[in-house]
Amino acid sequence: MGNRWSTTRLEAFSDGVFAIAITLLVLEIGVPESAFDNLWRGILDQWPSYLAYATSFITIGGIWLAHHGLFRRLAAADARVMRINLLVLMAVAFLPFPTKLMAEAIRDSDAERAAVIFYGATLLVISILMWALWATVARDRSLVHPDVPDEEVAGILRAATPSMGFYAGVIVLAIVAPQIAAFGYLAVAVLAVVRARGEVSTVDPVPGGSG
Amino acid sequence: MGNRWSTTRLEAFSDGVFAIAITLLVLEIGVPESAFDNLWRGILDQWPSYLAYATSFITIGGIWLAHHGLFRRLAAADARVMRINLLVLMAVAFLPFPTKLMAEAIRDSDAERAAVIFYGATLLVISILMWALWATVARDRSLVHPDVPDEEVAGILRAATPSMGFYAGVIVLAIVAPQIAAFGYLAVAVLAVVRARGEVSTVDPVPGGSG
Amino acid sequence: MGNRWSTTRLEAFSDGVFAIAITLLVLEIGVPESAFDNLWRGILDQWPSYLAYATSFITIGGIWLAHHGLFRRLAAADARVMRINLLVLMAVAFLPFPTKLMAEAIRDSDAERAAVIFYGATLLVISILMWALWATVARDRSLVHPDVPDEEVAGILRAATPSMGFYAGVIVLAIVAPQIAAFGYLAVAVLAVVRARGEVSTVDPVPGGSG
Amino acid sequence: MGNRWSTTRLEAFSDGVFAIAITLLVLEIGVPESAFDNLWRGILDQWPSYLAYATSFITIGGIWLAHHGLFRRLAAADARVMRINLLVLMAVAFLPFPTKLMAEAIRDSDAERAAVIFYGATLLVISILMWALWATVARDRSLVHPDVPDEEVAGILRAATPSMGFYAGVIVLAIVAPQIAAFGYLAVAVLAVVRARGEVSTVDPVPGGSG
Repeated sequence: MGNRWSTTRLEAFSDGVFAIAITLLVLEIGVPESAFDNLWRGILDQWPSYLAYATSFITIGGIWLAHHGLFRRLAAADARVMRINLLVLMAVAFLPFPTKLMAEAIRDSDAERAAVIFYGATLLVISILMWALWATVARDRSLVHPDVPDEEVAGILRAATPSMGFYAGVIVLAIVAPQIAAFGYLAVAVLAVVRARGEVSTVDPVPGGSG
Repeated sequence: MGNRWSTTRLEAFSDGVFAIAITLLVLEIGVPESAFDNLWRGILDQWPSYLAYATSFITIGGIWLAHHGLFRRLAAADARVMRINLLVLMAVAFLPFPTKLMAEAIRDSDAERAAVIFYGATLLVISILMWALWATVARDRSLVHPDVPDEEVAGILRAATPSMGFYAGVIVLAIVAPQIAAFGYLAVAVLAVVRARGEVSTVDPVPGGSG
Repeated sequence: MGNRWSTTRLEAFSDGVFAIAITLLVLEIGVPESAFDNLWRGILDQWPSYLAYATSFITIGGIWLAHHGLFRRLAAADARVMRINLLVLMAVAFLPFPTKLMAEAIRDSDAERAAVIFYGATLLVISILMWALWATVARDRSLVHPDVPDEEVAGILRAATPSMGFYAGVIVLAIVAPQIAAFGYLAVAVLAVVRARGEVSTVDPVPGGSG
Repeated sequence: MGNRWSTTRLEAFSDGVFAIAITLLVLEIGVPESAFDNLWRGILDQWPSYLAYATSFITIGGIWLAHHGLFRRLAAADARVMRINLLVLMAVAFLPFPTKLMAEAIRDSDAERAAVIFYGATLLVISILMWALWATVARDRSLVHPDVPDEEVAGILRAATPSMGFYAGVIVLAIVAPQIAAFGYLAVAVLAVVRARGEVSTVDPVPGGSG
């Protein structure tokens, strides 16, 4: 019990990293000046950048929701939670690089396969780390707020599992059809946001009982 | 009722994205080294960048004020609010790209029309999403703090409507006179900030009866 | 009295912009690959970048302190405070551009004068806006926390005045000796941080009485 | 005693700078388009960028933990704490520059030695400043929360000392074997995170007697 961190500042710091990573994504988008004599076409030609932007944005949005859902149920973080969380942040903050790479490479038949798989691999790593974060918390009941029922913890852990499967599947798809796989990542991200469960608060504004 | 989020962290995350997007705008401004032998002229020649910077900065500032006004009246966010908010953030975080494009293209007679319309279209999308956020909230009274009167909710929704009209108008103007339209966006942004309604409370989340 | 904003979120948003502007400054620093065969020399040759970085960093640090000192004495913000604050943020977020320009131009005899004056002009604008923020507050006692004595408000306003004079002086110096003036901005920034007055809290952790 | 700052906003501002600096690191990573015909190889060839990214990320993570540990024990900041903290932030926000330089130079036999030493020197400066922050606090008991025992303050100061020794050692190693030293910095960073002491409290600022 002697090695615990309060979650407030950990959460604020994580939120900062998520917000910055999500906002830096746009820096990679640009139309080369050579396309200025037909700018509408030049703008449309950047579709891989928009696809990559939307996918990474919604993916990080979904991770943020899941992260928020986890931390609001935590009573405290121990050393393992703190370290895995640092790895989650490191992987999320890394995402702008494979995002840029996928946007640049997607119409290059030599490069697109590698770029799309590399992007998917980063997402897979992030979802494994998020799952590990939950699994660590689920294993030590003392980390969880006393009024969160056991079934809720188990249920959320179960809910976190499929995305790893989805990413693995889309990566396999990327080997044969990289462009389709790129849209597959977007679909997984949208699904994750849509499936995000609300909170039944223990502490905050929204009263649990009336939920 | 089972799918609700507390607004605190959603608001903090949104603020982070707004603050970052607003601050990244400056990264696109620069004087080419070739202009260093007459740097004053080189600095003045960047006026489209300053115009684009000021316009996007004040626009995001106005959105931030409107967003703040909305969230401080919310009792909780449901899934729809959360998703529309994510779309708002995605559109706002995207703004640095059309901003840069407009700054670069504005003196290129081939490209300026497309760039100014594309910029306006992004602003129009943002204002539609902000309106949708309000409309979603206005439709479900249980999302609003109990002490916010119904007329206040309706009034703010009405107040949000004109900016969509303004943007549509300026986009049409951009077809015939792109440079004037670019200043038009600035005017709309300044107007939005000037029209922003204060809050009554001095200390806290919600005004109460004395408002 | 009907047009007031609570200061909490305004302060958080401002802090976000300050923190981001201060951290983006480093992005402009780099050693060209051509200098890699004598990298120590290449690193030393970037001294104008380090000078510009340190000056802008400490300047923004000082503005943050002054801003913090102002806002913690505010009971509420009215429309004017909110707008002037937006202008302060716009000027501070703009600073990375003149910073980069000064760093690039300082050893170019054609360009250095313009770059150093332009940088100083930006600092002068920021200090005028900060002064205007104080003056606006000082004029309307109802914006200030009831337990802040009048002399304190007047005293701080007086303390804010000299930096405008300093900047005007250094800008004049820049006309004859730009490189010396560049160091002058650093001196003004260091002085501002050193002169920063602590708080005698009215609300927070630090009790006023025992101070 | 008249020159004190509350720690809340100082801490939030510092967290902002840490979160941004940590997230900007990725912007320097990229695969040149010339490597697109063998993108897997191109991705692997960027290993120095990944090493530099991970090292700086984990280093800043460790500094954040130490900083958090310090500030949660502070009752208030005086002028010296505030200034040293500004220097800490200035050095941390500077880190992306030596990180980029080390990543670029590490396979260039002329440049790698200088780049690796310069990177290490920046880390050494940061650890000296962090130590100075603790030493300043340790010297003035009135800055520390009353319920933090003296031995705890002394213990943490002692714990802060070794990293300066580690960095000095790795810098010496860099003279003879720069590439090995680069991995050495990663090892020191990992060690710092692993050694980070938790807090006892689960809810709030300061542990109290039951710790």
